[in-house]
Amino acid sequence: MNNQAKINIAIIGGTGYTGKELLKILSIHPNVDKIIVYAKSSAGKMICDIFPELLGLVEDSVILSADDLDFTSDVYFTALPHGESLLYIPQLVSAGKKVIDIGGDFRLDKPELYRQWYGFEHSVSDLLSQKLYGLADLTKEYEYKYNLISNPGCYPTAALLPLTPVVKYFSESILSISTAAYSGVSGVGKSPKTELLMAEMHGNAKAYNLNKHRHEPEILQELIKSGLGNTPFCFSTHLLPIATGIHCTSIVHLTEPLEQDEVDAAVYSIFERSTFVRIRKIPPEVKWVVGTNYCDMHFAVGADRIIVTSVIDNLIKGASGQAVQNMNKMLGLDETAGFQINKHFSLTN
Amino acid sequence: MNNQAKINIAIIGGTGYTGKELLKILSIHPNVDKIIVYAKSSAGKMICDIFPELLGLVEDSVILSADDLDFTSDVYFTALPHGESLLYIPQLVSAGKKVIDIGGDFRLDKPELYRQWYGFEHSVSDLLSQKLYGLADLTKEYEYKYNLISNPGCYPTAALLPLTPVVKYFSESILSISTAAYSGVSGVGKSPKTELLMAEMHGNAKAYNLNKHRHEPEILQELIKSGLGNTPFCFSTHLLPIATGIHCTSIVHLTEPLEQDEVDAAVYSIFERSTFVRIRKIPPEVKWVVGTNYCDMHFAVGADRIIVTSVIDNLIKGASGQAVQNMNKMLGLDETAGFQINKHFSLTN
Amino acid sequence: MNNQAKINIAIIGGTGYTGKELLKILSIHPNVDKIIVYAKSSAGKMICDIFPELLGLVEDSVILSADDLDFTSDVYFTALPHGESLLYIPQLVSAGKKVIDIGGDFRLDKPELYRQWYGFEHSVSDLLSQKLYGLADLTKEYEYKYNLISNPGCYPTAALLPLTPVVKYFSESILSISTAAYSGVSGVGKSPKTELLMAEMHGNAKAYNLNKHRHEPEILQELIKSGLGNTPFCFSTHLLPIATGIHCTSIVHLTEPLEQDEVDAAVYSIFERSTFVRIRKIPPEVKWVVGTNYCDMHFAVGADRIIVTSVIDNLIKGASGQAVQNMNKMLGLDETAGFQINKHFSLTN
Amino acid sequence: MNNQAKINIAIIGGTGYTGKELLKILSIHPNVDKIIVYAKSSAGKMICDIFPELLGLVEDSVILSADDLDFTSDVYFTALPHGESLLYIPQLVSAGKKVIDIGGDFRLDKPELYRQWYGFEHSVSDLLSQKLYGLADLTKEYEYKYNLISNPGCYPTAALLPLTPVVKYFSESILSISTAAYSGVSGVGKSPKTELLMAEMHGNAKAYNLNKHRHEPEILQELIKSGLGNTPFCFSTHLLPIATGIHCTSIVHLTEPLEQDEVDAAVYSIFERSTFVRIRKIPPEVKWVVGTNYCDMHFAVGADRIIVTSVIDNLIKGASGQAVQNMNKMLGLDETAGFQINKHFSLTN
Repeated sequence: MNNQAKINIAIIGGTGYTGKELLKILSIHPNVDKIIVYAKSSAGKMICDIFPELLGLVEDSVILSADDLDFTSDVYFTALPHGESLLYIPQLVSAGKKVIDIGGDFRLDKPELYRQWYGFEHSVSDLLSQKLYGLADLTKEYEYKYNLISNPGCYPTAALLPLTPVVKYFSESILSISTAAYSGVSGVGKSPKTELLMAEMHGNAKAYNLNKHRHEPEILQELIKSGLGNTPFCFSTHLLPIATGIHCTSIVHLTEPLEQDEVDAAVYSIFERSTFVRIRKIPPEVKWVVGTNYCDMHFAVGADRIIVTSVIDNLIKGASGQAVQNMNKMLGLDETAGFQINKHFSLTN
Repeated sequence: MNNQAKINIAIIGGTGYTGKELLKILSIHPNVDKIIVYAKSSAGKMICDIFPELLGLVEDSVILSADDLDFTSDVYFTALPHGESLLYIPQLVSAGKKVIDIGGDFRLDKPELYRQWYGFEHSVSDLLSQKLYGLADLTKEYEYKYNLISNPGCYPTAALLPLTPVVKYFSESILSISTAAYSGVSGVGKSPKTELLMAEMHGNAKAYNLNKHRHEPEILQELIKSGLGNTPFCFSTHLLPIATGIHCTSIVHLTEPLEQDEVDAAVYSIFERSTFVRIRKIPPEVKWVVGTNYCDMHFAVGADRIIVTSVIDNLIKGASGQAVQNMNKMLGLDETAGFQINKHFSLTN
Repeated sequence: MNNQAKINIAIIGGTGYTGKELLKILSIHPNVDKIIVYAKSSAGKMICDIFPELLGLVEDSVILSADDLDFTSDVYFTALPHGESLLYIPQLVSAGKKVIDIGGDFRLDKPELYRQWYGFEHSVSDLLSQKLYGLADLTKEYEYKYNLISNPGCYPTAALLPLTPVVKYFSESILSISTAAYSGVSGVGKSPKTELLMAEMHGNAKAYNLNKHRHEPEILQELIKSGLGNTPFCFSTHLLPIATGIHCTSIVHLTEPLEQDEVDAAVYSIFERSTFVRIRKIPPEVKWVVGTNYCDMHFAVGADRIIVTSVIDNLIKGASGQAVQNMNKMLGLDETAGFQINKHFSLTN
Repeated sequence: MNNQAKINIAIIGGTGYTGKELLKILSIHPNVDKIIVYAKSSAGKMICDIFPELLGLVEDSVILSADDLDFTSDVYFTALPHGESLLYIPQLVSAGKKVIDIGGDFRLDKPELYRQWYGFEHSVSDLLSQKLYGLADLTKEYEYKYNLISNPGCYPTAALLPLTPVVKYFSESILSISTAAYSGVSGVGKSPKTELLMAEMHGNAKAYNLNKHRHEPEILQELIKSGLGNTPFCFSTHLLPIATGIHCTSIVHLTEPLEQDEVDAAVYSIFERSTFVRIRKIPPEVKWVVGTNYCDMHFAVGADRIIVTSVIDNLIKGASGQAVQNMNKMLGLDETAGFQINKHFSLTN
């Protein structure tokens, strides 16, 4: 597809926080002609009644019922509760449509893992091998041959981007990896729960889902593909008292010392052409990336460890921004279309 | 009652944010012997399962069903949704019990106002004239002759404490009063609503219930008792992106100039013996009072106006702290029993 | 200037919070060719060392010394401490340059007011009558004939936009206006002060500069131009525990009742073609406008009052966004150039 | 000392955040008769001018100059910048006074480490062996024989309390320990810095001092005493966008599986009589402990790891609260004197 092409978009399940960000990005995307939003309980409402802040930023229109989904769009984004995308994706793929699943229904490769981690039986397990796991800043252009992209989880995006070069180059020297990730509460969704009230979370922080978070097998699956082997990996999740943003710290214990220079060189070799990765000389701050599609990362190499820190906007790079980046790569468009990027910048800071 | 007396407490509806603060204060109250918590949906659970932070600070015990309320306690606090206290208070008062209603069911004097502002018919309107409106720092000891105290609303407490002296002394000079009050979200309660999520309220602020907040007629009722007459009064309410605390600004336009000194003198004359009122030389900050029973206030007198600022903890001075202070005065105990106050301090700063 | 024109920009004093927003907007402005940043203490540093988050979003370049300012740019923005713009603006205007002062040095019309409110003598008072006060959503295109635009203060922008129609249409019916405005702490600037630390302001709120804020005479000056007359006006300022955003509540006491419909009609008549004003059917939230150039407003008409609420991003609509909007109008460009606006939207919500 | 004893207190350097909490606790301590606050730049000011919120909670009095320190008090608390306590503590100890250093000048056992980690030469290294490292919930009563107590750092308190039992019982099974600790910004102190402004830290989070934080050798020193041996340990520090509180996550990779039950049993055996340790069945929240002297902890045992989470108030349990607890134990008083504790509570939740 050339860069002047015009595409029609359908978003299925677009009334949550990821839907809002997706709408904002697609509304300024130079190749997007039309956007239809499908939902269930919000069908019949206007988009800007659901998202008053988008008034004037998106073209306001009525939300259609997901039951009335048709095949007239070019690209379909699904942002649905676990398991529900299976109602739509198989027929869309069969009809030759491009599909990007922002949910988790296709992230794990092995169908048997869905019962354990997601609580449902994966009914279309053949599709699992026909999807691309779209970690967009690491996935090569030529890999975008599939019609179905599984958009990575927010935590896996934040953890995998910086850990992948470390594992690829130094897996032999790693004793263990321990990742502690902290997310703003928008990551848990828009459904009202007492524990997520401002009155509860203001001034607060806490761990949750320890040893039980479904992003752990997703990260491990991809690290193993990069060469981790049997090295112990542990992932823990926490809530930050903010709305948006993830801070991820991975402590990599080493069996032999590494030099800062060689770690930096390895990382640069992987990301030197990555627009949306910023390698930092000091630990990055969450606010540097909120509202953007960047992943900022830093590698503090000590005597027998690397402390890897990375930050993303959980709703953009961790969901809708990466989804659009995946769409761009899938369609052969400029990867940065839809994002405000100044092309003349140096890679590091 | 002498200061060595021991009293048994019942709290009906003690599982919300005001209940938590009430439990904390009563648990260190030197005259309290026993506390029973009654509730509806939480009956059968342990107090520290509802409030894990209270473990060790209160005596953990099972929450009883409000249906099993008995008359063996000495003092009853009701903290219930609007209208529900009417199921318990009439029989408690008839049985000669001391009752303090932290809710709003007895705050307005005129029964016909409840339909308009609270949405229910007041079934025990005779009790409305047998209650004391317990604005504890302004109500005199000898007025505590009734068995039923209506605890003021949080906003009215913050607005009325500083405005009452101004109205009492200068009502002739007032052109209009405009009060803009901002509250932490705990003031709206513990029921989960999307609009109160951390993801929504972080970094946010907004007005709500404009021209419709039931605390407006309550404030106006009391200002008229203090001599306001027909002077226009308007009250607006807003949410702050914090858990606890109220900041209240009242702009008093004057028809003739007043001096800072005479305003200060009037205020001092009213509060000179008030332990829980701190008159400030600079505008007070919300954090100065969070976790305390203080109301801090400041009066900035300009050419033709007074800007009155006041701050309280909405759950303590604006609810449970004032309720205990009311109990203390009702029982003839030291007003400060249950609060951490150092007695040797000067009034102003 | 036609919409294909290319312009060179100079920013004098661009290393504070307003400078950051200005850089972000101008970097995506279709007519901007080149941006030079001048500063004092930060001269010699790279822009992205001062603002690491802008890496990739702006063209990184060295900050020049303000002492080396030259006349090769087309448009000059000054964002300097009070009084310092006077060192540059007179010669720039003499040289025929277009100048937009984001600071306060030209906002008040009467030179004698600067001593009282700003603490300096205004040395170029003749320029005060040759400047345009650029309240961009109310100033007509044909008024942009001057070379010097004084960009309104953040609070005045938030207060004046909704109050101007009320005053223009209903000044005869107004008894008093009382404005309580709350701002995020970025409004106070980037200089470190203990009272602005996160440790102090988290969970906090407070009034400041009561009866002494220099935005009060600015608002009053403009309201009088709109017909306020001698009607009492009072303005109070407060800090919100957030970084960015202003919430402004103006309580307008009326001498005679007004209908919601007639107030709405008056407001619409003023703003019907204003892209950056959104008139709301419910009170707007600060978060709706953070990161945008919008002013959202709402008018709650009661029996004898109008409660006017409005929200802006203090750094964008309240400073740099409005400055770019002013530049656009001054140069005859599309008012929305540089902003992400979808043109197909309805005015209200 | 019996529980009716009265003691006089001196606080040297009491005008920071730890000083404020120390004053609050000591002001309600039943054995404290008199408190003198010494400081440098704040000498001559009143305590409640420095801490307006303490008005009424502490006895307001003038702050004395540290140059005028005398030996008339019984217990001396030092809360000073690194290295400065050495000007006072040697002579106080020589004079037979009880001293509790809330700073870091005596935490490391080996004098040579001070140059590397604290940047000063330790001039009284003999005192290092005469001090007690007062991790109050683990230090036995009979160890309190010294006159000098080094109060642990905030992060070490949060990390060591839960890790000590794990290391004591299971050191043979530990492959590596990785601790990621997040602190509210009050932990960094009250000196104004741009990076700590509300405008910077609101909605933010970041790592800092990676591989360079002086609390790392302190934690490691104590873990080795508990039997850690050469097992790799790494500690990383981060800032939370809140004022107060620490959340600490330690991921313990195991070389052989452990059962939840045996870990729980080990932890219970250590803390069964510890009033200020609450062992939780779910991961604890920061807000549960803010304002208290508790350390809440939880142990999530997985197949090959334990995820240890713990929370404290960095200014109370992590500084002033533990200091008073240390004083109580040093003087033979009830450990809980000065704290609001209900004695009838069960250990776990």
